[in-house]
Amino acid sequence: MPDRAAAPTLQDKLAAAKHASTALATATTEQKHAALRAIAEAVRTGADRILPANELDLANGRENAIGAGLLDRLRLDQPRLDALAEAVEVVVGLVDPVGEVVRGRSLPNGLQISQVRVPFGVIGAIYEARPNVTIDIAALAIKSGNAVVLRGGSAAAHSNGALVALLREALESAGLPADAVQTIDEFGREGATELMRARGLVDVLIPRGSAQLIQTVVRESTVPVIETGAGVVHIYLDESADEAMSVDIVRNAKVQRPSVCNAVETVLVHAGAADRLLGPVLTALREAQVTIHADERAIGVVPGALPVTEEEYATEHMALELSVRVVDSLDEAIAHIRSYSTAHTESIITGDLGNAERFLREVDSAVVMVNASTRFTDGGEFGFGAEVGISTQKLHARGPMGLPELTSTKWIVRGQGQVRG
Amino acid sequence: MPDRAAAPTLQDKLAAAKHASTALATATTEQKHAALRAIAEAVRTGADRILPANELDLANGRENAIGAGLLDRLRLDQPRLDALAEAVEVVVGLVDPVGEVVRGRSLPNGLQISQVRVPFGVIGAIYEARPNVTIDIAALAIKSGNAVVLRGGSAAAHSNGALVALLREALESAGLPADAVQTIDEFGREGATELMRARGLVDVLIPRGSAQLIQTVVRESTVPVIETGAGVVHIYLDESADEAMSVDIVRNAKVQRPSVCNAVETVLVHAGAADRLLGPVLTALREAQVTIHADERAIGVVPGALPVTEEEYATEHMALELSVRVVDSLDEAIAHIRSYSTAHTESIITGDLGNAERFLREVDSAVVMVNASTRFTDGGEFGFGAEVGISTQKLHARGPMGLPELTSTKWIVRGQGQVRG
Repeated sequence: MPDRAAAPTLQDKLAAAKHASTALATATTEQKHAALRAIAEAVRTGADRILPANELDLANGRENAIGAGLLDRLRLDQPRLDALAEAVEVVVGLVDPVGEVVRGRSLPNGLQISQVRVPFGVIGAIYEARPNVTIDIAALAIKSGNAVVLRGGSAAAHSNGALVALLREALESAGLPADAVQTIDEFGREGATELMRARGLVDVLIPRGSAQLIQTVVRESTVPVIETGAGVVHIYLDESADEAMSVDIVRNAKVQRPSVCNAVETVLVHAGAADRLLGPVLTALREAQVTIHADERAIGVVPGALPVTEEEYATEHMALELSVRVVDSLDEAIAHIRSYSTAHTESIITGDLGNAERFLREVDSAVVMVNASTRFTDGGEFGFGAEVGISTQKLHARGPMGLPELTSTKWIVRGQGQVRG
Repeated sequence: MPDRAAAPTLQDKLAAAKHASTALATATTEQKHAALRAIAEAVRTGADRILPANELDLANGRENAIGAGLLDRLRLDQPRLDALAEAVEVVVGLVDPVGEVVRGRSLPNGLQISQVRVPFGVIGAIYEARPNVTIDIAALAIKSGNAVVLRGGSAAAHSNGALVALLREALESAGLPADAVQTIDEFGREGATELMRARGLVDVLIPRGSAQLIQTVVRESTVPVIETGAGVVHIYLDESADEAMSVDIVRNAKVQRPSVCNAVETVLVHAGAADRLLGPVLTALREAQVTIHADERAIGVVPGALPVTEEEYATEHMALELSVRVVDSLDEAIAHIRSYSTAHTESIITGDLGNAERFLREVDSAVVMVNASTRFTDGGEFGFGAEVGISTQKLHARGPMGLPELTSTKWIVRGQGQVRG
């Protein structure tokens, strides 16, 4: 533990993480697994250290009236610690991406070249008052051979402090440097800004949380960012859409878990199918307490709907609210999506092969679907075994990210004295 | 051509490029090839339009006394136009990366998912007074289905203007939108800054040129950047290094083409081999007019060497200058590389298997080599068929970049009405 009289600066911590990253990068899978198992054990049996710290954060939260939803996300208890420990054990079961040979060949001059997965080095994570993310992201970083610098939000600072102490002890118990996990909550907002400018010490920054948080990180960072999350997600009901399928998919995409990024926000419906489909679809949604915002042409079919605004088309509600618009063609649907989508996930419901293929080709989102619920955009559903986040940018990773997306590559060249002619 | 009275603003041009990018993204390979062949033809037979414009830039350059090297890079003539046309024809011969299925599977619920290569959309390129880059990067962008916004430096503005006019005509002759190629030279430095901030309109920015240019782009951009180029490259002569191989490789890496990023800048030599190797290696370099900067321990073995400075260890000379340092161990060599390398390319010359493997594992550069000249770090040498640049960052692309590095991916999900349980 650092001496209080000489508390490390943020730069000290970043430099320590970078130094420790070398040991993580060259650690064997067995060493990393030993650390992860120690983390799971410490989380499962560490209630006496974790919950009092969490109680301090909860008390502060109640004092600052942060709202029931945020308080619930902040709260830890034994069942949640058990679930967190289990999640870490799931990470142990994933394939270690480090060392995977991505491609390789022999060149005509006898040089052998191969492209091999290597850790990034130091990952920075900026997120909001969710102590479970502290464990999640640290476990994924360790498994992929990366050091990690965590900025988890002042509202969860006591909880994160207790969890980071456990993480560091677990690393040491496995013979890996404790400094591979750092928290910088104590440096407040200025610390977050300094982290975003730490190009050279931090290799990649992953923001997780509100659209506002993510936009701030994207705007302020000189460190490369993987932009995750915000989802203004669309479903287009084509003229030939099956009625029962339309009802099932729209209901599932809006109602099953409205607070997540892959929930639908706008349903577009072809004018030739509006009379046939809107009644049953919207009846099902009203039964599930969904508030409907409808455009001029849809509002006649939807008794009790509110008029939709431009702003709502661009809003990720994360709640039981849905915008509905009637369009005259697939082209108009695609144009609407181009204007308002965050390029996360869009789905077409159709029986028409040509329209399905055009939608898949022309809609430029991270995930494009035919006849499926947008809720399937998820690392777990895709079979990646872990949820690193969903990238909505085009560089490096796009869509659900698995462990390989937490690595870079390097080229290895083996020669016998070759020189260039 | 735009009316002078209503010349498009930079935002107009970016919006036009984004709009045109949809047509490029969905163009067939045949359409793109027709455009590329038209470009090659226009460059080969367009001397009457291109060379007078180039002469204006050269005259300005001479007036501003920009130096013989820069003038030479700026100059176009018929042989250079022929070479440029040939380079475009080489791009026609490359595999089109768009549509490649990277991976895919069927999920237990019957959903079929596949990850498919798609163009980025709009690529921004910022480079310095080299008109050949205008054609090179436009050809690579078009082949990979991207629109491109070019900022080629005011010193080459007339040449670039003439070349971009040809590029746009060639696109139109192939039925593709001329707006997929834009030049923004007329907006000066402010235009470059605006391009760097055009997140949402430009998907990725590729700077090519001096370290200073690249650092400016990295610092100023909110658009994701692929950092290319700067190479403070090292060769480490291990205790067991073969003498003839050491001489050949160091000479090749320094002398064959000193002005490029994969040329060596510092040779580290194990103390146990310094007496044996430094004499022959440095004799060969002196014969090639290389100026040697040596550390205290090497300077005794190298008559006529200048003392090396910390600053030189960190400098990419791009000239016939070389720093030399004696180290006591592989660890000390790796530590030196960690301190001074730009993580471009490093090579170890050794006969020791264990040291070779440690060097490959522990040196975290884009390309790490055993017993080979660092000059092999090159898209052409790696068999990519084209030189997009050499990435020195860890996100998205690392090392020599081929056409696939100019694409992103998207996930396609095909269902039959699946909803999430």
